[in-house]
Amino acid sequence: MGQEVVLAVDIGGTKLAAGLVDAEGQVQGHAEVATPADGSLLDSALRGLLTSVLGDVTPRAVGLACAGPVDPLAGTVSPVNIAAWRDFPLVDQVSDIVPDVPVTLVGDAIAAAVGEHWRGAGQGTASMLGIVVSTGVGGGLVLGGLAYPGPSGNAGHVGHVVADPAGPLCVCGATGCVEAYASGPSMVGWAREQGWTGSTAQALAADAARGDAVAVAAFDRGTRALARGIIDTATLCDVDRVVIGGGVAAAGPVLFEPLRRHLANSATLSFVRRVTVEPAALGRHSGLLGAARTAFLAPDPVTALRP
Amino acid sequence: MGQEVVLAVDIGGTKLAAGLVDAEGQVQGHAEVATPADGSLLDSALRGLLTSVLGDVTPRAVGLACAGPVDPLAGTVSPVNIAAWRDFPLVDQVSDIVPDVPVTLVGDAIAAAVGEHWRGAGQGTASMLGIVVSTGVGGGLVLGGLAYPGPSGNAGHVGHVVADPAGPLCVCGATGCVEAYASGPSMVGWAREQGWTGSTAQALAADAARGDAVAVAAFDRGTRALARGIIDTATLCDVDRVVIGGGVAAAGPVLFEPLRRHLANSATLSFVRRVTVEPAALGRHSGLLGAARTAFLAPDPVTALRP
Repeated sequence: MGQEVVLAVDIGGTKLAAGLVDAEGQVQGHAEVATPADGSLLDSALRGLLTSVLGDVTPRAVGLACAGPVDPLAGTVSPVNIAAWRDFPLVDQVSDIVPDVPVTLVGDAIAAAVGEHWRGAGQGTASMLGIVVSTGVGGGLVLGGLAYPGPSGNAGHVGHVVADPAGPLCVCGATGCVEAYASGPSMVGWAREQGWTGSTAQALAADAARGDAVAVAAFDRGTRALARGIIDTATLCDVDRVVIGGGVAAAGPVLFEPLRRHLANSATLSFVRRVTVEPAALGRHSGLLGAARTAFLAPDPVTALRP
Repeated sequence: MGQEVVLAVDIGGTKLAAGLVDAEGQVQGHAEVATPADGSLLDSALRGLLTSVLGDVTPRAVGLACAGPVDPLAGTVSPVNIAAWRDFPLVDQVSDIVPDVPVTLVGDAIAAAVGEHWRGAGQGTASMLGIVVSTGVGGGLVLGGLAYPGPSGNAGHVGHVVADPAGPLCVCGATGCVEAYASGPSMVGWAREQGWTGSTAQALAADAARGDAVAVAAFDRGTRALARGIIDTATLCDVDRVVIGGGVAAAGPVLFEPLRRHLANSATLSFVRRVTVEPAALGRHSGLLGAARTAFLAPDPVTALRP
């Protein structure tokens, strides 16, 4: 293999995943471990994972996707859900584990968008928005066929587009963000306020699929806001397609049916109405493949994520 | 001059402007005529303007900026305010007037953004949004230093980002668009509903500058919505700067002071709070210079506007 593969790594608050990926997008080795809750164990967990996946292979490059915020130019990360890492020099750390090859870094939602564009539900589109609906609502843009991280690496934050300025308070401090309606915890929290007694987004989706009125209303309310964010993104970025993954999106029609209805009812401009919405096709591998693609396209770590 | 200049043309509902522009952005010849209200006179007006500006010069290319909607790939335009042109083959028409040189076409708001990025208030930024606040609210994006028209040529429509879904009906059919609050006619219409008796945005701006309570409130309300559109754009596109031109923006502090206050009060994410807002610096020439820049960068008319 040697120069033919890259080492792709996807780092989140729940798991650390890694694999060897070839230029066609085949994952030739893959392993994952739970993200240690004890921050002092993080570095050794990462080192152990990368060493075991690599074996005696020297990859052409390493592509990192990491939960945000990330600073691709500085090579540092401060994942909201990994408290031990604040301005953590992840690129340097990985260069220490895998010396003498270029290391690229990209936010995990951008990586998921790039992966879906390369080998998933966004193939063939000129410009797309990838959304991850899970504990939060993340997003990443592929514009003109290339990842668009933006000058600060933060482009695509569709979860913090304001759906309704009179809406609920968001974790970011603003009111009415898409995430404050459409994330799993936001939908669950609203449903519980209406008397629903479950506690997880999976249970809420199952109840909605069974026709439970409050659960259906929670998805209706969440997807109305999500449609708002998609329409604003299409209005600004002229995307052809939106690809949605993440744990909550895995619920399938319970999310996609009301979402498509709200889009059809609310989009007015012709270039916005052309947008198609599709479920992610790569499951847990979208971030890994996006990290790999980024590494293949731009092995120079400094210029990797400049648009 | 010969191959050293391009012929830049800026076509709007009010005027047709043209000039010869060199690679440094110097306008070496410039003329404009009122857009004929009688559509049957449009073609001869355009031909007369271009012929007189060109003289015996053979330009390297022709760069067209035109009021939207435009279809850059088809080379056709359907300007809202030029009723005689619907799917009008503007590129073919201009190729007939100026044969044997490449012709590029871009929407006027994108051209204004490109012009300001090249030689105006957006110089040196990696990514910026240009806004034209006038009869409508137009926008154009420069991302990673290049015009981003999007696959359909319609990216940057910040005027149709929804500021408040409970807001007034917009000409596009949606409710609460930025344009429905912040355009000249929208601010004037709202002020008149509150008892203001003037009829133009210029008069409204003059009264606001004098401290008239309703006029001040109209700009406060309009700029609150404009701030909403800017924040959503920054959240999605990670722009460094917003440059605002157009007749209403010419009012100066009456617009920029409340706008900057609303931005400071409403932006929460750090990468959004970094955005700076500046008045356009090129006046009536921003569109012309953007059309010229587009022609210099991409003399192939087919690929010119692909991002």
